[in-house]
Amino acid sequence: EIAAAAERLLAPAGPLKGRHLLVTSGPTHEPIDPVRYIANRSSGKQGHAIAAAAARAGAQVTLVSGPVSLPDPAGVDVRHVESAREMLAAVEAALPADAAVFAAAVADWRAASEAAEKMKKDGGTLPPLTLTENPDILATIAHLSNRRPRLVVGFAAETQNVVTYAQAKRARKGCDWIVANDVSQRSGIPGGVMGADSNEVHLISAEGVEHWPQASKADVAERLVGRIAAALGPLEASA
Amino acid sequence: EIAAAAERLLAPAGPLKGRHLLVTSGPTHEPIDPVRYIANRSSGKQGHAIAAAAARAGAQVTLVSGPVSLPDPAGVDVRHVESAREMLAAVEAALPADAAVFAAAVADWRAASEAAEKMKKDGGTLPPLTLTENPDILATIAHLSNRRPRLVVGFAAETQNVVTYAQAKRARKGCDWIVANDVSQRSGIPGGVMGADSNEVHLISAEGVEHWPQASKADVAERLVGRIAAALGPLEASA
Repeated sequence: EIAAAAERLLAPAGPLKGRHLLVTSGPTHEPIDPVRYIANRSSGKQGHAIAAAAARAGAQVTLVSGPVSLPDPAGVDVRHVESAREMLAAVEAALPADAAVFAAAVADWRAASEAAEKMKKDGGTLPPLTLTENPDILATIAHLSNRRPRLVVGFAAETQNVVTYAQAKRARKGCDWIVANDVSQRSGIPGGVMGADSNEVHLISAEGVEHWPQASKADVAERLVGRIAAALGPLEASA
Repeated sequence: EIAAAAERLLAPAGPLKGRHLLVTSGPTHEPIDPVRYIANRSSGKQGHAIAAAAARAGAQVTLVSGPVSLPDPAGVDVRHVESAREMLAAVEAALPADAAVFAAAVADWRAASEAAEKMKKDGGTLPPLTLTENPDILATIAHLSNRRPRLVVGFAAETQNVVTYAQAKRARKGCDWIVANDVSQRSGIPGGVMGADSNEVHLISAEGVEHWPQASKADVAERLVGRIAAALGPLEASA
């Protein structure tokens, strides 16, 4: 508590000074056995850019990151995790937060049981791979009865019907905003948005749908952080 | 052919001058749908070290690499692939070779059909994930009736019964050597050999089993490349 208070005092001035922002980023890796896993494609570039932008805006930032090839952003407290279950535990441990942005691409499923030894294909028969649903981190945090961050922001990566799916996701998950993007190859971003340096998103809230034109992931992050600061309002008003 | 001949003339002198070595490295990623995949854990460090050591020994080196975070080794012709099927195609396209070292951790299975759109979990039911066996790159190349490299080297990453499994693998695959290592957490290498900078291997050949003590992956690569040069013998003798 004293350390956290000192951190807030030492943080740069900015619209998020005195705020704690929680951000998730990157993919999760779900182990099948000691050498195999199921993963989502996610470079972590958008989530890391949001964490960095929030820190520059003066927030105390906790970034819970799955396996990525990116350096830890400056001025951000980074917790490295691998699986969805580890990510949920790290998110819960990082609460309370004023706002939480769930930009990670969490695997929906994992193997029902992780084999302790490497599975062998000898004999030519395939092992049964039974899947089970992972915890839903966004819905879990959005539905907390206490300690729910005042602003909960989810991401939706879709390949078709982007806005429709994202609006349904917002309602289903109980979050405040959804940042939706088209991750298909036909998105207009060469090679697709995954791993790219630019993004084109829709911000979906109770007020409606805003289309943000294609911009760098850093610019999308700055714009989103500005909106978060505006939504949270001045620190005094909420204290 | 002229370009290849020029490359050989320009290559540094060394025990593999005039030879073409084919090396595979890294994991493969097998797509389930546009955002999900099955993968093997493999940093590519050992395979890339072997390619680099072979180039330093004067060989013309083709490295077929799955998705890794490593830079392309200097003086090596690198072909980047993602799936096992792409890796096999790149390997076949790179033949003929005097020796081939299959250090990549190729996924044994892939999803039987890749979904064109992101699979949805709405409704709470899990999609069926039917697996199908991938092509066996090592066995395919080791059993070629013509264009088989004179020396075919496989890798075996095991978590138990390392030597026994590796000897069976050598017989089954039809390769000349197997470099076997223990990738379990109990291997004696802190955190396990996956992603580590050191390795401890057994070289399994028709002559028997050699244990190589723990060494850096660069040193293991140098030693293996030396053995390959010795096995291929002087260029004149085989021309």
